[in-house]
Formats: sequence, structure tokens, C-alpha cells
Amino acid sequence: MDRRRLPTPALLIDEARFARNLGRLNARVDALGVPLRPHMKTVKNVELARRMLVGHPGGATVSTLGEADHFFAAGFDDLLYAVGIAPGKLDAAARRIRDGMNLTLILDHPEAARAVAAAAERTGVPFRVLLEVDADGHRAGFRPDDPTLVECARILERAGVTAAGVMVHAGGSYACRDRTCLKRIAEKERDDAVAAAGRLRAAGFEAPVVSVGSTPTALFADNLAGVTEVRAGVYAFMDLVMAGLGVCEIDDIAISVLTEVIGHRSDQGEVLVDAGWMALSRDRGTADQAVDQGYGLVCDEDGKVLAPEVIVRATNQEHGLVGRRDGQALDTADFPIGRRLRVLPNHACATAGQFERMALIAADGEHTESLSRCRGW
Amino acid sequence: MDRRRLPTPALLIDEARFARNLGRLNARVDALGVPLRPHMKTVKNVELARRMLVGHPGGATVSTLGEADHFFAAGFDDLLYAVGIAPGKLDAAARRIRDGMNLTLILDHPEAARAVAAAAERTGVPFRVLLEVDADGHRAGFRPDDPTLVECARILERAGVTAAGVMVHAGGSYACRDRTCLKRIAEKERDDAVAAAGRLRAAGFEAPVVSVGSTPTALFADNLAGVTEVRAGVYAFMDLVMAGLGVCEIDDIAISVLTEVIGHRSDQGEVLVDAGWMALSRDRGTADQAVDQGYGLVCDEDGKVLAPEVIVRATNQEHGLVGRRDGQALDTADFPIGRRLRVLPNHACATAGQFERMALIAADGEHTESLSRCRGW
Repeated sequence: MDRRRLPTPALLIDEARFARNLGRLNARVDALGVPLRPHMKTVKNVELARRMLVGHPGGATVSTLGEADHFFAAGFDDLLYAVGIAPGKLDAAARRIRDGMNLTLILDHPEAARAVAAAAERTGVPFRVLLEVDADGHRAGFRPDDPTLVECARILERAGVTAAGVMVHAGGSYACRDRTCLKRIAEKERDDAVAAAGRLRAAGFEAPVVSVGSTPTALFADNLAGVTEVRAGVYAFMDLVMAGLGVCEIDDIAISVLTEVIGHRSDQGEVLVDAGWMALSRDRGTADQAVDQGYGLVCDEDGKVLAPEVIVRATNQEHGLVGRRDGQALDTADFPIGRRLRVLPNHACATAGQFERMALIAADGEHTESLSRCRGW
Repeated sequence: MDRRRLPTPALLIDEARFARNLGRLNARVDALGVPLRPHMKTVKNVELARRMLVGHPGGATVSTLGEADHFFAAGFDDLLYAVGIAPGKLDAAARRIRDGMNLTLILDHPEAARAVAAAAERTGVPFRVLLEVDADGHRAGFRPDDPTLVECARILERAGVTAAGVMVHAGGSYACRDRTCLKRIAEKERDDAVAAAGRLRAAGFEAPVVSVGSTPTALFADNLAGVTEVRAGVYAFMDLVMAGLGVCEIDDIAISVLTEVIGHRSDQGEVLVDAGWMALSRDRGTADQAVDQGYGLVCDEDGKVLAPEVIVRATNQEHGLVGRRDGQALDTADFPIGRRLRVLPNHACATAGQFERMALIAADGEHTESLSRCRGW
């Protein structure tokens, strides 16, 4: 399809930038000798997932059982569901394992371990579990020295459940402001994962899996000794939050929302576009960074940044308000009604999550292929 | 289906509260003698739309052409597409009108009027247009005294396009903090709409339609003289933003997200649930209100508020962090892993927009019917 005929708002993926982003992380983890288990929560598409898996063993990470189903139907059978398992989902997980899915769960609490053990005994399904370890107080996980880590492995193994190792997600890396911090958190993520696996091994568990990762730590790690796999998802698309962290350049961002000018507020030097929060998402991830990009940075139709100050300042459901960050007026004559623009989003996962389809823009910049995205839970 | 078997996260609609919310606005507009043209951007579902239209002429408002298609396929043929028309969508709009959809467009600029006029001449389709008027500087629209209002009507009518009247959305009402403000903005919305229609009539246009509305102004207007229809959408579900405005009570909120406890952060007195921003949306509409509800107010599984201080304090893609607003610790023993909770959202449109289906909870509180929602553009 001709790019110029796409209805707006539309989610665009720049194929050349996507490929470059994959090459960058692949080169990094190849140099450190650790394979990727890419996280599919960002792309949520089989064709792009296959490209992300080139050169890697084939295992993937998912954020919902719906994603697991989507990728399993396409032949991906080694799937890590990287959200602490809700006991209410254990019967659904057991059904998938019985259907041949090699599904790994995570947990970080004896109550959850007991629920998995009980479900294993009830359903006869030998679940496989990684114990989640917390490297930075960001979200979930055992502290590396928490005695319940080993206790959980024992609860699981008594019920025939494999406690296959540990996983850490150092989401605290998103709060870094410089490379020193990124490198320090990457090292902490590795250290804590390896230490926790060591404690399991000292207690007699094999713990073959040491899984770490986030896009910032995956790209800035200097040492992955003892790590068996790296997880990352946002690296494929990149976004303004990653650029604000110094993890990528603006020119690396492969994701954008195509939109069209629908009105002027000439007295305020602002223009209205047909991409509101329903398209861009409500994510304001750059609000706490050095440069607040509003709801996104505005580019021309070909993806070239208009000016570093021109952003989507506000949104309603289906309206975006484009203006300058510094409050100066735009010359609305530069934005005739009907002009098409692209918006680089704050957060690739959130913006992509608003769309059921995305248009892959080929290297010629003109032709597009429409890709579906899985949704729901 | 038994409510207790719903997979989490799930979008729930309390049928009794939904019906009560409809009754409240219906009583209000009935008393003022003006019919509703309900906005479907909130419910995005045919069954609920039919209930909203009981006692009204049958016309509806939509926020995307995708919604227009969804409702037209179900027999709704009088549809107002209430976002300034993008010239790039005019061929798509013309196709729908040729297929029998009675679609009305809106615009607020001579460039847009010329684009519609050109498309009418090119396609032979006699579009029908309302001129959008700005009562409060909130977003789009002609100022009521703008000379281009009449100029646009002339541009349209010369091309055989019907300039059928005016529409105003006083979105500024969302910034009110008390009833006096709501009533004042409702009156301003009416005044400006009626004045703009008067100017069209004085210039020789019939301008039969005077369309106003937002949930706050629709519920607080005391006088709708000269208005021919009222638009509102959020009123059907209500949400924390509306409660914060004083437009409804917390107990009127018909929408919630069912979630399950998946972890504890006992040292911080917080618990993790399986509803993150992918389910709740990133909407932080209460952040600027007197009571910041975080990402939502937490209720028990039956919908009873646990305590006014217990909110979703933070979210990741599939994780929500529940804690107290005042920073005191929750007793995590009250939140065993596997406990189910409901979260009342900040903004009904944004949270509902994250889901493809919703479960209608019957008056008995136990049985549910699964309803689809339209998505995309």
C-alpha cells in the first residue's frame, strides 16, 4: 500500500530503524556471549518477533497469557510469562502446558509457591517456575538474601514443580540520568541474579536459568558472566523515554503515529491533529526527564523532526494539540489543514498498545505492509 | 458466566449503576425538553447504546469513523462524527454516505470548509456539516463572533453541502471545582451555541441544529432554550474524575477493573496486582483534582471501597502497585495472594478503551454477560 493512503491515525514502524535497533542489541549480547529471550510485549506481532529471534535460541518472553497463545499458535513454544503468576490463572496455565506450550511462570512469595504446588498436585501438570529476584526495589521479587527464596524452591520441588532458576528485571534503570547509572544498575542486576542462583545451588537446586534484562541494562551491561539469557523488548522500537535516558538517539526511534492537521488555534499558535490519547496513549514518561516531550515529538510526514521544541502539548480522546514547548507560537500557515505529520511517542509499549495494526514502512519510505498486533489478556 | 471465574484483568460494568446513571441524565434532559444524542466513545457497544437511546430520537455521536461503521452495521444510521474532519478522511466519509449512513461532519476553519466543498464536487456526495463553536477556549471551534463562521457556511452551501447548524462541546467544564462553575459553563455553552446559530440564521441559513454537551454541562444545565440536542457519553459509566468534579458520587461509578493480588512488598506495606496501565490506562485525570486517586481507587471483589486512602499508586505494563495515598503501610495480611479486587478508574473512556470486551454484572452481582467493544479508527 502507498504510505500516503493510510488512514489516520496510524501506527508506523520504520523497517530500517527497526533492523538497526535489533543489530545493535544483537551485537552487544553476542559480544558478551549471552543469547536473547526477547520480550514480545512491545511488538506483539509474529513477523517482527521472528526477526528479533534471528541468531537466538527461539525462546521468547510475554506479558500476558493472551500473548502466549498468540505466539504459540505461530509456532513459538518456549515462552516465559514474566508477570508474577496470579493463582486464578493457574488452571489456564495448566491447560496451555497440557496443549504442548513450554510455559515458564515466575513468582516471589511462599503463598504463590504454595498455590503453584497445589495446582500441580490438583492438575497433574508439572509447572516450571523461575524465582523473581529484586535488584533495585523497583517492583517485585525476593531480595537476593531473602531466606524465602530457597523456601519457595523447596515448596515447589516437593510438589514436582521445577524451580528452574532466577529472573531479574532491573526496571529501576528507567530512572537513570546517565551512563554511569545505567552501567551500575546493569552490574547490580547481574550480581543479584547470579548471587540468588548461587544460593539456590548451594541449597542443592540445579538452577540452570539466570535470566536478566531490561532494554537499558541489556545495552549497557559490560559483564554478563553467569547469566544465561537476556530479556529486552523496547529496544526493537525505541522511544522518547529511551532517548531521554541516553539509551538511544531520537533518530533510532522506529515507531511513530501518523496524523493529520484538522484545525488551527491561530491566536495561541497551536494546531489540532487527529491523534489524541486514544492513539498516542496517556503515557507521559518523559514528564520527569530533563526534556518533557509532552505527548510526543512532532516530525514531518517523512519522519524528520520539525524542531526540537514542537511537541504534542495536550490530548483529548481523538484530538492532539501541537505547539511549542517554550510557549512561543507556531506559524499555523506552516500547518495547512490536511497536512500529515508523524509523532514520536514517549513510550513504545503504551502507544503501540493502542493499535490493533501497524504499518511497516519499507526502506524506500513509500510502501507499507500491514501487520496485526495481539491484544487483551 | 459466574463472575468469580472471569480471567483478570477484566473490565466490569455494573448494570444497576449504569441504568441509574442513564435515568439521572434522562430525567434531567426530559425536564428541560431536549433529547439526547448520546456519545458512543465511552461505551463503544451496541447493546449499551440501545439502552442509552431509549426515549430519544435515535441519533448518536461517535469519535471515529470506525465507531460509525460499528454502529451503522447494527442499524444506527443517524451519526454525528464529532471530531473536526480531516481532509484525508473525506473520501472515506463519502463512501459511507453513499452506503446509506446519515453521517454529519464538523469543522471550524475555511480551509476545512473548502476541502469539504471540493470533496462534495469531486464525489457528488452532498455532505452535511455542523459548524463547531468554541465556548471556553478548551479545544476547537469558531469563537461565536468569528466572521469566518458565516463565511464557512457560504463556502459549504455554494457546493451543495448543508450547513445544518452548530455544535459546542464545553470541555472546559472538566476544570471546574464546584457547582457554580459547572452551571456557569453550562450556561455559556448554551449561550454561545444559540448566539452562533442566530448569526447563521441572520445570514439566511436555516441552521436547524443547535447541539451542545459534555457530561458535566448536561447534568448541570438549568436552561437549554434554543438547544435542539444534548451530547454526553461518560455519564453512562461515570468515573473518579466526574466524582472529583462533584458531578457524581463514588457509588455511581459503574465501571471497574477486576484484578488479582499477585505479590507483596511487605516492607513498604504495598501489594502488587495484575492490572497495570495496559488495563487501567495511563490516565491520571485526578492528578490535578483535590484528591489524587493515583491510577484508581481500590474496592473489594464486590465493588465496596476498601478505604478512601487505598489506591493504585503506580503501574507498569501489567503490574499495579496498591498502597495508601497517605504513605502509611497496608497490612499485607489483608491482601492474600490470589485475593480479587476491583479498581474504579480515573477516566471511563480511557480505561474502557484498553479492553476489547467488558463483563456486564447483573443486578444479582453474580452473573455476567460478555459484551464486545469496537476499537480502532
